Amino acid sequence: MKTIKVGLVGFGTIGTGVAKLLLLQKERIAKRTGCDVQLVKIVDLDTTRDRGIQLPEGMLTDDYREILNDPEISIVVQLIGGTGVERKIMLEMIEAGKNIVTANKALLATYGEEIFCAARRKGVSVAFEAAVGGGIPIIAAISESLAANEIESIHAILNGTCNFILSNMEENGSDYAPTLKEAQRLGFAEANPAMDVEGSDTAQKLAILSHIAFGVRLDWKDIPKDGIETVSGTDFRYAKLLGYSIKLLAIAKRIKGASGACDKLELSVCPTMVKHGSPIASVSGAFNAVSVVGDAVEHSFYYGKGAGEMPTASAVVADVIDTVVGRTRITFDTLNLWDPENDRSENIELARAEEVTGRYYLRVMVEDRVGVVAELADILSKAGISIGSCVQESVEENTVPLIIMTHETTEGAINGAINAINQLDCVKSEAVRMRIYG
Amino acid sequence: MKTIKVGLVGFGTIGTGVAKLLLLQKERIAKRTGCDVQLVKIVDLDTTRDRGIQLPEGMLTDDYREILNDPEISIVVQLIGGTGVERKIMLEMIEAGKNIVTANKALLATYGEEIFCAARRKGVSVAFEAAVGGGIPIIAAISESLAANEIESIHAILNGTCNFILSNMEENGSDYAPTLKEAQRLGFAEANPAMDVEGSDTAQKLAILSHIAFGVRLDWKDIPKDGIETVSGTDFRYAKLLGYSIKLLAIAKRIKGASGACDKLELSVCPTMVKHGSPIASVSGAFNAVSVVGDAVEHSFYYGKGAGEMPTASAVVADVIDTVVGRTRITFDTLNLWDPENDRSENIELARAEEVTGRYYLRVMVEDRVGVVAELADILSKAGISIGSCVQESVEENTVPLIIMTHETTEGAINGAINAINQLDCVKSEAVRMRIYG
Repeated sequence: MKTIKVGLVGFGTIGTGVAKLLLLQKERIAKRTGCDVQLVKIVDLDTTRDRGIQLPEGMLTDDYREILNDPEISIVVQLIGGTGVERKIMLEMIEAGKNIVTANKALLATYGEEIFCAARRKGVSVAFEAAVGGGIPIIAAISESLAANEIESIHAILNGTCNFILSNMEENGSDYAPTLKEAQRLGFAEANPAMDVEGSDTAQKLAILSHIAFGVRLDWKDIPKDGIETVSGTDFRYAKLLGYSIKLLAIAKRIKGASGACDKLELSVCPTMVKHGSPIASVSGAFNAVSVVGDAVEHSFYYGKGAGEMPTASAVVADVIDTVVGRTRITFDTLNLWDPENDRSENIELARAEEVTGRYYLRVMVEDRVGVVAELADILSKAGISIGSCVQESVEENTVPLIIMTHETTEGAINGAINAINQLDCVKSEAVRMRIYG
Repeated sequence: MKTIKVGLVGFGTIGTGVAKLLLLQKERIAKRTGCDVQLVKIVDLDTTRDRGIQLPEGMLTDDYREILNDPEISIVVQLIGGTGVERKIMLEMIEAGKNIVTANKALLATYGEEIFCAARRKGVSVAFEAAVGGGIPIIAAISESLAANEIESIHAILNGTCNFILSNMEENGSDYAPTLKEAQRLGFAEANPAMDVEGSDTAQKLAILSHIAFGVRLDWKDIPKDGIETVSGTDFRYAKLLGYSIKLLAIAKRIKGASGACDKLELSVCPTMVKHGSPIASVSGAFNAVSVVGDAVEHSFYYGKGAGEMPTASAVVADVIDTVVGRTRITFDTLNLWDPENDRSENIELARAEEVTGRYYLRVMVEDRVGVVAELADILSKAGISIGSCVQESVEENTVPLIIMTHETTEGAINGAINAINQLDCVKSEAVRMRIYG
């Protein structure tokens, strides 16, 4: 039986899960690969903490060069999470001829082109199933299983922290701040939750999915995003009344161009009202889910744990297995990801706000006096936005929520209107906007 | 660019979808494969019907030997549906050195071993993503994406006809017979619906999934199955009241043996009460879905169109692409499916009814007189079955439904009790039994 040696960089939560699978399930992995896959070296700055797994003497080190300089290690699983030294280490590993398996979405979303071009030059592969959606095999689904399709849209819940907070707010009728605190106490949110709750983590994952599904190369920072901090208990009350849940959705949607013209691609990350009864509305807690529409497969939907030790390790080790048996190599060679010389985005470009259409929910905190509704309605009317329904809640206070559901309009029009609304004297805090889906 | 020639046997609904993708989306497929994939021959007994697609002169023939004897055709897509001549043709194609892509679940569930052994001897591959779950990439998910897992359970809706009928009964409060008629009128059920509504189609698909997930080789006819014909509007009324939907589920569940002992595998196809709120309960109409629990990935869920021209063609053409680029070859070689020389089922065997545990719903149509409940309760008590709840509906008729929900018991005990109950004078028609899930 052929021996394949694997090195692991990063011995945190996911790294521990990967080590458990590679060390404790050797027989299972041998059955799937026909090879003796040996984890021989683990690198982490912290070499003393107990991770609940017994390692052979000398396996754990704080010096990544012990992997880099071992020519027998052909696969490196890199599970450290930033874009600084992590980028340097990955490029060095590639330069040393190692095949890469990684879960580092920030690195791919930011330096995908540099990393993939380096790997192509060196003749090694990069696998990254665990970078998006944890245990959900969404990268394989879009790259391989749906390869016969032109992808029309992706609507996805990609951040377990946000979904946990929003689900709890919905279930308990609570507001954002105390729910975040509770999520932090339970370990579902970081001490500094900004990357999650502001939507950056979701935008990075969406940038990766969009590159695979549509070929677009873009800086994830250019994806318009709203976070979940402004969602309130009031919004959930209305959502429920109207038959919706609220989810932070990553949205990528192809807008067909006229014959001969480029298609446009709408990308956004924003709190979205999702109609009850659709599969994505039933996704609660720390689960992730991806809804994909293809022109042949029609609606398909994938759901699972988006984070956590073993679910993410499941995706990482699937990549290790695929790399060992050679599937990764084929997919890497045929997909030409992040390859400026094989530009797959020639017939698609990012949509401008004026080209993106949708229905919107607005909540505006306004002064409780005569004429306020008329002032807002006037702004919307001038922007060409038709109001579907409008409710002003009576709460016996000076400032009351005014809820507006629009008919179909454009992102450009709604943005312009919100700017104007925020200028009004009667408006007491910035208007909260959500997309409506389904 | 390398040319790959493909032959298609079967020009029905799915065959037409496959021809559309291969002929009209050549550029897309060239991008995904780096090859010029050419559909050069289509075989069907009916060479005259208009399928809404223009074929080049001479492409359509009624003689499969035009594919068989063309040495340039390396991939055969076989989309004819039985196990007679279809088996003969597939074995001849394999013998002629063709790689196979098929959607024929009956053939694989019945003759999987013969076909796979022939393919292994000949050095060709067999791909069958479309055989289970239509457009849902469940074969790839279990074989590749979840390869790091030991699969613990599969709960799946695999028959669109049954799900369409059950969903409509639920929605409209209607009974089985008129709903079946309506489904037939709309083209969601065949004129002879037996294979679907009696659960055979589902059992064949479950046999294939179980082989991939657990390694068990079995005759699909040995899977215990109940169909949906006995489900009534009354059952849906109670299900709703108790917070359940009713789905025809294919169930495969590993029962861990004591240390050293074989694990047992529970397999069944039966109408099942599925708790509202779980993703599988939200699957309505002709959709299919598969819920998979793995020991690493935990709960994952896959959903999509289980049948129909383009969704199924999406899966077939994904297999063609995988075969062209070489992924199928690798998966075929590493999985060792239906290979008696690589028995993967050594540590698992089918559970006997006494080893299968669950909660059950019973509906018994009984005579409306004193003492009836006591008679039934006595039988259940003697079988060691504890009653969770019991309702006798008052319908002002001589025969009334008696509904019993049991606590956890065994399949063996419930089967014995049902046999005894069916013997009682007060029981007017065979008791209807459902599993409870979630």
